[in-house]
Amino acid sequence: MPMIRVEMFEGRTLEQRRTLVRELTDGTCRALGCTPDAVQIVLTDIKKENWAEAGKLFADP
Amino acid sequence: MPMIRVEMFEGRTLEQRRTLVRELTDGTCRALGCTPDAVQIVLTDIKKENWAEAGKLFADP
Amino acid sequence: MPMIRVEMFEGRTLEQRRTLVRELTDGTCRALGCTPDAVQIVLTDIKKENWAEAGKLFADP
Amino acid sequence: MPMIRVEMFEGRTLEQRRTLVRELTDGTCRALGCTPDAVQIVLTDIKKENWAEAGKLFADP
Amino acid sequence: MPMIRVEMFEGRTLEQRRTLVRELTDGTCRALGCTPDAVQIVLTDIKKENWAEAGKLFADP
Amino acid sequence: MPMIRVEMFEGRTLEQRRTLVRELTDGTCRALGCTPDAVQIVLTDIKKENWAEAGKLFADP
Repeated sequence: MPMIRVEMFEGRTLEQRRTLVRELTDGTCRALGCTPDAVQIVLTDIKKENWAEAGKLFADP
Repeated sequence: MPMIRVEMFEGRTLEQRRTLVRELTDGTCRALGCTPDAVQIVLTDIKKENWAEAGKLFADP
Repeated sequence: MPMIRVEMFEGRTLEQRRTLVRELTDGTCRALGCTPDAVQIVLTDIKKENWAEAGKLFADP
Repeated sequence: MPMIRVEMFEGRTLEQRRTLVRELTDGTCRALGCTPDAVQIVLTDIKKENWAEAGKLFADP
Repeated sequence: MPMIRVEMFEGRTLEQRRTLVRELTDGTCRALGCTPDAVQIVLTDIKKENWAEAGKLFADP
Repeated sequence: MPMIRVEMFEGRTLEQRRTLVRELTDGTCRALGCTPDAVQIVLTDIKKENWAEAGKLFADP
């Protein structure tokens, strides 16, 4: 029944999303011994103007 | 003081959102005995390319 | 496929949780036209020392 | 290693975001005694049609 | 810079957590082409009395 | 109406939490021009066995 959320920078292709959810699902099943249909994943695209580290937006040089 | 978050597929009408937040607020007050103004709700629209089950995006047939 | 998260103060009884998830599920189905088995809910209990409003913890008088 | 998430109404300028993440980072470091580079912040813009209080969307008058 | 959150039932061993975060990190790097140190993961243990599907708590038979 | 969530390692004192929510509230008001009572904050304590970076739990040496 695991629910997975991924926050990542925007701009990923559909193919990258496809690969990501397959990888995360397979890895979760190997680690926890669950079946793939028990795994839900939600991806969230974050703009660089909305993510900061060390007090500085990634949108700023 | 409950805070409620709903993740759902994008495409809901304003009228559906209106009904949803009223239903969730009323149901929460009945269950927990709080007053409506204590209930905050945030809705999040998820694209089908960002939601996966069983390792497969909902955007994929 | 809605996923609902509720953050609330700790201390709710099992019976209140039972009523809450039934109310939220039924209200969501009425508002969005989905079936109950599509609705997932996760409840989170928050201690008063971990919730603040107006810069003040609810644990503080 | 704190991770901070802020949900706020959409419409903030880049300059407000810049100030916000600097303020949150500095305040966190003063309170917890960590270094700025340990603080990650993600901002989320919420539309008024997706935020409700007391069972009513902020988009509704 | 991906941040991953996993909500799962409580009761997982330290060894399962260890395997899970390694699997999720490796899979994310393969899918997105990032380096492992860019991946942060937070696991959350959910009690069966706090998770519901179809309007029914998993704690209830 | 900003809602702030902070995930941090467990073990912070009540005094640190008190200072943290005051700092975050004041900083948010300065940056966004809102009033303190509009700011809600939820703190979440994360165990070292539930936080990972670079595929490794912080609980592991």
